[in-house]
Amino acid sequence: MPGGTDMTLRPFLWRAERLYPDTEIVSRTAEGITRYDYREYGDRVRQLANALSALGVEEGDRVATFCWNHHRHFEVYFAAPSLGGQLHTINPLLPAEHIRYIVGNAEDKVLFVDPSLLQALEPAVQSPEFDGVEQYVVMAEEVPDTSLDPVVSYESFIEGHDTEYDWPDVSEDQRAGMCYTSGTTGNPKGVEYTQKMLWTHTMATQTPQGIPMADDDVVMPVVPMFHVNAWGMPFTATAGGAKHVYPGPSPDPSDLASLIEEEGVTITAGVPTVWLGLQEYCKENDVDLSSLDSVIVGGSAAPKSLIRWFDDRDVEVLHAWGMSEMSPIGSVSHLKGDLADADEETKVDKRAKQGLMAPGLEFRVIDDDGEEVPWNGEDFGELWVRGPWVTKEYFARPEANEEDFEDGWLKTGDVVTVDEDGYIKIVDRAKDVIKSGGEWISSVELENSIMAHDDVAEATVIGVPHEKWQERPIAFIVPTGDADEAAVEAEVMELLSEEYPKWWLPDDVVFIESVPKTATGKFSKKDLRDEYTDSSMFEGQAPDEAAPESE
Amino acid sequence: MPGGTDMTLRPFLWRAERLYPDTEIVSRTAEGITRYDYREYGDRVRQLANALSALGVEEGDRVATFCWNHHRHFEVYFAAPSLGGQLHTINPLLPAEHIRYIVGNAEDKVLFVDPSLLQALEPAVQSPEFDGVEQYVVMAEEVPDTSLDPVVSYESFIEGHDTEYDWPDVSEDQRAGMCYTSGTTGNPKGVEYTQKMLWTHTMATQTPQGIPMADDDVVMPVVPMFHVNAWGMPFTATAGGAKHVYPGPSPDPSDLASLIEEEGVTITAGVPTVWLGLQEYCKENDVDLSSLDSVIVGGSAAPKSLIRWFDDRDVEVLHAWGMSEMSPIGSVSHLKGDLADADEETKVDKRAKQGLMAPGLEFRVIDDDGEEVPWNGEDFGELWVRGPWVTKEYFARPEANEEDFEDGWLKTGDVVTVDEDGYIKIVDRAKDVIKSGGEWISSVELENSIMAHDDVAEATVIGVPHEKWQERPIAFIVPTGDADEAAVEAEVMELLSEEYPKWWLPDDVVFIESVPKTATGKFSKKDLRDEYTDSSMFEGQAPDEAAPESE
Repeated sequence: MPGGTDMTLRPFLWRAERLYPDTEIVSRTAEGITRYDYREYGDRVRQLANALSALGVEEGDRVATFCWNHHRHFEVYFAAPSLGGQLHTINPLLPAEHIRYIVGNAEDKVLFVDPSLLQALEPAVQSPEFDGVEQYVVMAEEVPDTSLDPVVSYESFIEGHDTEYDWPDVSEDQRAGMCYTSGTTGNPKGVEYTQKMLWTHTMATQTPQGIPMADDDVVMPVVPMFHVNAWGMPFTATAGGAKHVYPGPSPDPSDLASLIEEEGVTITAGVPTVWLGLQEYCKENDVDLSSLDSVIVGGSAAPKSLIRWFDDRDVEVLHAWGMSEMSPIGSVSHLKGDLADADEETKVDKRAKQGLMAPGLEFRVIDDDGEEVPWNGEDFGELWVRGPWVTKEYFARPEANEEDFEDGWLKTGDVVTVDEDGYIKIVDRAKDVIKSGGEWISSVELENSIMAHDDVAEATVIGVPHEKWQERPIAFIVPTGDADEAAVEAEVMELLSEEYPKWWLPDDVVFIESVPKTATGKFSKKDLRDEYTDSSMFEGQAPDEAAPESE
Repeated sequence: MPGGTDMTLRPFLWRAERLYPDTEIVSRTAEGITRYDYREYGDRVRQLANALSALGVEEGDRVATFCWNHHRHFEVYFAAPSLGGQLHTINPLLPAEHIRYIVGNAEDKVLFVDPSLLQALEPAVQSPEFDGVEQYVVMAEEVPDTSLDPVVSYESFIEGHDTEYDWPDVSEDQRAGMCYTSGTTGNPKGVEYTQKMLWTHTMATQTPQGIPMADDDVVMPVVPMFHVNAWGMPFTATAGGAKHVYPGPSPDPSDLASLIEEEGVTITAGVPTVWLGLQEYCKENDVDLSSLDSVIVGGSAAPKSLIRWFDDRDVEVLHAWGMSEMSPIGSVSHLKGDLADADEETKVDKRAKQGLMAPGLEFRVIDDDGEEVPWNGEDFGELWVRGPWVTKEYFARPEANEEDFEDGWLKTGDVVTVDEDGYIKIVDRAKDVIKSGGEWISSVELENSIMAHDDVAEATVIGVPHEKWQERPIAFIVPTGDADEAAVEAEVMELLSEEYPKWWLPDDVVFIESVPKTATGKFSKKDLRDEYTDSSMFEGQAPDEAAPESE
């Protein structure tokens, strides 16, 4: 074969260490700020690899982490995959039963855990799923009081091991990473990342169409390292020779502000809540954001007000969309060259969408009839994607594969529009979109409109089964303390009828005390559906025209 | 396998066409300036694919081109590989016997040729190596007078074919490209590029450490499309959604100047001669270079004066190094972040080197004893590289493979130093470096020093066999018209003894009328060696200490 060497993470570390030995990795932990350079990082990665090998970790073995963002976690990021193992990052916010399922399903051999997360882990451990874990390693100098057994501190685990390691020639098809995605139903599904997926994702992220990082960048992933490898940033920053800043356990806005100021952060990334928190903090404190070039916002939609607020401070908000199944990055909301002269409102509109798909990926948007929808910014359907860093299957879950993959495409479960410029906008989850009379109604759009009412604290809209129309929307509203429910209902319906066609309007409004939430804090529409679907309370309330007029 | 889809060129075209239907491809041909957009480009690519299929071209078949840089050539770039074929670009400047060898060796099935290159092709064709060519296609509206047979014009070849084509799912290991590299000895060696190599090269080139291209870029490859796919630029520009500008057959400096001005070129690339020509032209004409961001210089070393001249015009010269065997890009001379505050001289020194190896590659520099040399900017050895877009073998040339590859590494044949910052600098070709007393002498450094003398028109230095010291340097000098040879020799030796250790000094200086050249205009040291090695004229002239003093 003329083709070259396998695509693995190893050369990224090699390059960073050789070309940028003095560039820093900065980490905030309970022990304070730790600071070293790629030279020392490389030595510690190899010490860790030797420690893992001494423990018997071999190619194909899974190495689990239960940790926040810090330098020791980053050391596992390169050591485990480069010796041929598989880095399995566990979300410590999951309920104990999910943690048990995940560790048992993945057959983790060693587990690294933060001191501050021992309390979250210990209750899960007394269970047969943990029988395969041969060693617990606490991410600290000393082992705190814990019931874990056998247990060792990270520093004593690697201490005395050689700083040289003869890396094997790992295959690009070797599974190098793993992450579980928590479905709204059933057990979490394992997504595995091969070396090739991590390599191609890193390179695609490094293009101008992704989130490129260079040797003068200072990169701070606020997105947890247990969320799809912190969106790949530890790998991308290394490939680019950038300085890393890890904000450690539970950083609050003041921690982030001081890391930005003191370390000169140029690129950071996280969910909107993080940036809304920073924004609030900046209003009350004098924070110097001048080093910042871009803030990557993902996980959920970036409010336009946030984009504008950062614009005013010469910081570019880059809205990104992705999924665990996509390693994770799919699209980034760069402003296209030919929109440079558009008016500000148009620009912010575009940038608030989920963006333009990265080069190397392909996508289609499929409606209920299995047809591709036109790119007009209005018609919507389910987003299907494929590409080198998009998985083709879940780990040991044939029934989920059957549902979520088709002809080599990942059915993302996101319902989107695509506008004339190719910008993708998520309008709903496929499970939540309301199918009425053969057409789709976006529950998210209705919710956003309802929540714009001053007297609405929270609102959610679900589809309930309907004999004639298949499904009809019902709105659930949590009113603010002293609101008059009848008045709110009338005003909301008036508001919606101005914005949407008649057949989109909810058949009923139900006032509730709070919207049920999932373990990760999202609205749990499933619980509402379970509760209300079997009742006959909404029967026969649909309008005569509960479908588009064209039908 | 969890791994995603195969890495192929297809999604790059898909993305450019869908996201940037109106972005232009501009082409200068004998017919004038042609201008269309990605939408029409995609249609024509698919028409061409249908025409090739109708001709019987199938997966694995080779499609040859004998063309300059223009839109029709660019259409073959995507059509042939995307239907599973292999694009084979032939260098029309080669002698007829090499062209015959290449076409026979590659078993080309169809051959695209420029009208202006018919005269170069026709003499080669009357030979059995061309028996496999089933169709000649002339890159024009009409077929000019030609002896080629069967022959058709490009426009009538694709005319009437469907603009839809159901691209097959081509494997990433499918051979998609091919280029012959002309060695200084023997027949040219074929280098094949798989889809994966082209994909990984494209992505690596798109990183900040490569030559990234975005949708607001206007990319003009002056480097011929028969030189390693114009350094990959047609693929990279498409992946980035950039506008393309192809300067057509034999562009002169005024053609380049007007294309830059009229099309707003932001990135262009070529060998130093091209830019020296443009520089001369700009001195005598009022040329607006304000659109230009960067000029990529490769093929041979970029003079510092050229770097400074463009600096003064706010144009960044990016020095790049690569090889046919590397698809081709290896290193690019970006200034490192921590050199931003260095003095101008240091910066230009760094930028005039061959640069920093791109992420994804690994390299080592090996001396005569097989040891890695230290990164000190002084010690030198042969550069070995490996990576996903570096080939592991030549096409059907096992004896060359034996010589040029070892343990998965490509032995580049370039002798380099690496400085403390990791910048690579080529000091010689491995075949030309002079091995004296177990140490290496750079023939190139001696030549450059000798050519700095005002009375020297050309000079070259070769190693000739020596009984005691293995090899010793001999200098060949072409003096300027009225120079006094004895004075030149004395002054040159004085000059060299100031710059280099005693054991580097040539054992003799021979005055000649001209340096023999290869077919592509390079100094042919082989011819000099053949001529002088067998003679005994230099015997016994070595100094007592023809080796480093430390030996």
